[in-house]
Amino acid sequence: MDSTASARTMTHQAPRADVDIATTREGTPGGTFMRQFWTAVGVSTDVERGRAKPIRIMGNDYTLYRGHSGHAQVIDSRCPHRGAPMHLGWVEEDAIRCVYHGWTFDCDGACVDQPAEEASYKDKVRIGTYPTREHLGIIFCFFGTGAEPAFPPFPEPPGEGVIDVWPVYEVPCNYLQCFENTMDEVHVAFTHAPGGSHAKLSQDLPIITAEETDWGLMRYGRRKSGNVRHTLHYAPNIVRVIVPPLSGMNGVGGWPEIIFSFTPVDDERCLWIITSKVYVSGDDVAKFHAQLAELNRLRADAPPVLDVVRDIWSGKLAYADVTHPDLAVVQDIAVQAGQGVIEDRASEFLGRSDAAIVVWRRILRRELQLIAQGEPRKVWSTPPDHITPALGI
Amino acid sequence: MDSTASARTMTHQAPRADVDIATTREGTPGGTFMRQFWTAVGVSTDVERGRAKPIRIMGNDYTLYRGHSGHAQVIDSRCPHRGAPMHLGWVEEDAIRCVYHGWTFDCDGACVDQPAEEASYKDKVRIGTYPTREHLGIIFCFFGTGAEPAFPPFPEPPGEGVIDVWPVYEVPCNYLQCFENTMDEVHVAFTHAPGGSHAKLSQDLPIITAEETDWGLMRYGRRKSGNVRHTLHYAPNIVRVIVPPLSGMNGVGGWPEIIFSFTPVDDERCLWIITSKVYVSGDDVAKFHAQLAELNRLRADAPPVLDVVRDIWSGKLAYADVTHPDLAVVQDIAVQAGQGVIEDRASEFLGRSDAAIVVWRRILRRELQLIAQGEPRKVWSTPPDHITPALGI
Amino acid sequence: MDSTASARTMTHQAPRADVDIATTREGTPGGTFMRQFWTAVGVSTDVERGRAKPIRIMGNDYTLYRGHSGHAQVIDSRCPHRGAPMHLGWVEEDAIRCVYHGWTFDCDGACVDQPAEEASYKDKVRIGTYPTREHLGIIFCFFGTGAEPAFPPFPEPPGEGVIDVWPVYEVPCNYLQCFENTMDEVHVAFTHAPGGSHAKLSQDLPIITAEETDWGLMRYGRRKSGNVRHTLHYAPNIVRVIVPPLSGMNGVGGWPEIIFSFTPVDDERCLWIITSKVYVSGDDVAKFHAQLAELNRLRADAPPVLDVVRDIWSGKLAYADVTHPDLAVVQDIAVQAGQGVIEDRASEFLGRSDAAIVVWRRILRRELQLIAQGEPRKVWSTPPDHITPALGI
Repeated sequence: MDSTASARTMTHQAPRADVDIATTREGTPGGTFMRQFWTAVGVSTDVERGRAKPIRIMGNDYTLYRGHSGHAQVIDSRCPHRGAPMHLGWVEEDAIRCVYHGWTFDCDGACVDQPAEEASYKDKVRIGTYPTREHLGIIFCFFGTGAEPAFPPFPEPPGEGVIDVWPVYEVPCNYLQCFENTMDEVHVAFTHAPGGSHAKLSQDLPIITAEETDWGLMRYGRRKSGNVRHTLHYAPNIVRVIVPPLSGMNGVGGWPEIIFSFTPVDDERCLWIITSKVYVSGDDVAKFHAQLAELNRLRADAPPVLDVVRDIWSGKLAYADVTHPDLAVVQDIAVQAGQGVIEDRASEFLGRSDAAIVVWRRILRRELQLIAQGEPRKVWSTPPDHITPALGI
Repeated sequence: MDSTASARTMTHQAPRADVDIATTREGTPGGTFMRQFWTAVGVSTDVERGRAKPIRIMGNDYTLYRGHSGHAQVIDSRCPHRGAPMHLGWVEEDAIRCVYHGWTFDCDGACVDQPAEEASYKDKVRIGTYPTREHLGIIFCFFGTGAEPAFPPFPEPPGEGVIDVWPVYEVPCNYLQCFENTMDEVHVAFTHAPGGSHAKLSQDLPIITAEETDWGLMRYGRRKSGNVRHTLHYAPNIVRVIVPPLSGMNGVGGWPEIIFSFTPVDDERCLWIITSKVYVSGDDVAKFHAQLAELNRLRADAPPVLDVVRDIWSGKLAYADVTHPDLAVVQDIAVQAGQGVIEDRASEFLGRSDAAIVVWRRILRRELQLIAQGEPRKVWSTPPDHITPALGI
Repeated sequence: MDSTASARTMTHQAPRADVDIATTREGTPGGTFMRQFWTAVGVSTDVERGRAKPIRIMGNDYTLYRGHSGHAQVIDSRCPHRGAPMHLGWVEEDAIRCVYHGWTFDCDGACVDQPAEEASYKDKVRIGTYPTREHLGIIFCFFGTGAEPAFPPFPEPPGEGVIDVWPVYEVPCNYLQCFENTMDEVHVAFTHAPGGSHAKLSQDLPIITAEETDWGLMRYGRRKSGNVRHTLHYAPNIVRVIVPPLSGMNGVGGWPEIIFSFTPVDDERCLWIITSKVYVSGDDVAKFHAQLAELNRLRADAPPVLDVVRDIWSGKLAYADVTHPDLAVVQDIAVQAGQGVIEDRASEFLGRSDAAIVVWRRILRRELQLIAQGEPRKVWSTPPDHITPALGI
């Protein structure tokens, strides 16, 4: 099998990997790399004023709460006193009081009340807090050391339209294979063939190329017509792309621009956090919202996406036969998380269609090796307003 | 952060711990310590005459059965022949017959029948058995080596009244943080604030002190009024205390005395095994039982306690909004098991309210270190009748 | 306890085991031993023409599909390109196309289409395939190296009758203790006492003997009457035996001959794959099918077998009280998987009733040790037509 041996060498164009490019655990090179950037941790509607909820991001647990002023704040998950979960407590103004003994912390982490202790003790205790801001309906948090990067981390898509934030999906696999999937446009002609939602993108198969930029990766998909589709991959885990309307939208709202973050919950799970600009105005805004309400009714009546995915995996449901209002999401999760919880990249036979994935992995390995060796690494720029995706079909 | 460093030293008042105070696995110092005492393994109504059930205590599996004489007996979980679960078998008089090949063992562990084997073979086989006795509606078992301690392990609370045995709860965390919670009366003003069941204990916050006794720990809670609440902590895992009536009891039965064992299932789970003396007599006995029947009806219709706790943990339910006939139990489990399966005691900032916990940990560490070093250790006494809890509010 | 020590020596009649006789993982001696034979992987009705499903056998994942010609084929579970699950794809003639990028493989493993790649690349890629054949309603696969053994792996039971393939059960324990159970006829008098389905086999207890053959193990059960029951144990995991009708059959169809494979899913689970010859002809065929349809109606309305088993294990249901259309299956799984996920053979007290188990373990240890040492091992024969089971009661 000499031919196989030579095929395998294609997977080794990148420098020898002695770093784990899939992990984002704190303290690993991948964890340090990811924590240079603002991380999408949820959508703004996740947490109302005066409420708190638990979140888990890149393997660590946090409490996210929204003070009565409207400010959202991420803090450590546990009270430093005896480890009770902070999200069980009470939001008081923009501070939060622990459910166990009433210790209270403000947004900066200072302990401002300790009912059963002597007055001076509270000055000795702090809780960890993390810069938290919101943009286009998404909550971002900075988990890194040093100064926080510029905010917002990317521009709003230009033009008149409506911001539509999608439901958040928790997907049972590593984030990186999902991010890689967005660099691989050939898949839509096969993965999304059932249901036909992506038929216009599947009339012919594009030739993929990609180049590193100051802010991430620009990917091109050249069609037989000569048209070229442009897709932006913002470092480290966000794609900005023009996509077909979901099958449940019946074409209403046209092709929106979506900004899609693949946020690691831990190395085995990720959140799909998605916002979009829908190019509707005037009467079409109401039509769009009506159709979206209809889609949400269908979603509420449909079996949960992950239940359908598990039935596909077990063989109970045939992939080609599935119908679902979120069919494209079902398909993407079935295939991407179907690659394994963490895809075995050592067993691949990469091809021409994987050109952009190869470029991104080379960037990741380079940066992670620099981090591992303690050497100076790339300073990433905030994506500029004028570089935008192009439909290109 | 010098102040933090100095705060942390508070957690190190106890001698340096090179022992694991949370584990009770057989063969560890903690396991040996716990096995000096009678262990509550369930309630008497768990097992009827002629029936058997599986139990798991401190990481080991056993079969508990009740012979036709009424005697309850704990034996090893598996038949020594080929490992079939003994609780699947048949109780015959006070012996038990294995479901696989009919080998039969009496209460002393002797093999008394082996239908398919030659007659002499049964003399070569025994099953492990453990002294088993009952007191106040609770089944106790002695898993230690040497002579069994005096029985009962503690006196019945004095005075006229009714013994009321509670439902057993299985709680998904280590037993020790639950036992510690009973030493920490400040928590009731916060943890049990929603629902108001403990309002009378929360009018002001007590100053906690504690002292070691021959039989465990006596804890005091001094109020601004000068009243002092007395609570008994019987070594190694039982609390005796006067508590408010459960919210579902609407005050009927008044403030009972409860005796509450935190029995390790294994290091990650524990049973809450509770009996109580309710101070009712005459017509009030019937009123109490009627209200208890009503509470049990409400319990039967309510979602399982642990389902509610998991919804609180996941953020689906807000702690402050929960209603449940077992609200105080929901609250206690949400907070105590919310500290983590085994609380990370190395990350605490202990305070004045933790004074009794600090004393008990010091005792535990001392005893476990003596066991680890093979040195003589404390001989614990049976708690005397005349030392009783005081309400003290 | 000298007597115990001498009893324990009975378990050591076989040569010292330095091999793990329970594992079948690839690369272990047990895995190599098992892969010498055709392995039953499912029943023919599991997969229709044009469909694919996932299977897991001896710790490895595969895709099983049936081409449009009717040929069933086992291949590797994942596409060699980027690891997508092959069973999500499309069966085209007797080939299968991957859902992710359309790579297509034929029954021999050749890549015959790769839509987005250059033409020559497909010659460099193959998928693993495994010889797959069918016999008596069961699908067999050969996972070994070298030439495949003779097929079919055992003869059809002689005489006029109907082949009846049973439902497949997935059982949560290692396959070997299930295979051993079939060598242990004494168990039926106890394990199957409730319900009475095996009463005729339980009137007295047989004396068990066994001898190694060219094709496996022949086991004898001699009754007080002098009658001898013959049961065939085909290496490595198949039993052929005459059994009573299932309780749900009410005796219709009489005592069938069953051929029963204990197929490892992995070391912790196995499939019970069973086919049978029912000795009915003429009008009795229709009666048999009518009663079987009735049994299947009862099965559809009954709680799942494993749910009942778990309720028995937890103590919620009493073993002796269970009623179920598949009662004997419930009983067998409760007892055999109740021995532990992998029975602890080091803790047994084997007796006279275990004589056949002792012989088979000695064979297994001998063969696995030869494999471990790289020495020539037994060449097993295909079971001959003329050696058949005898009822012998």
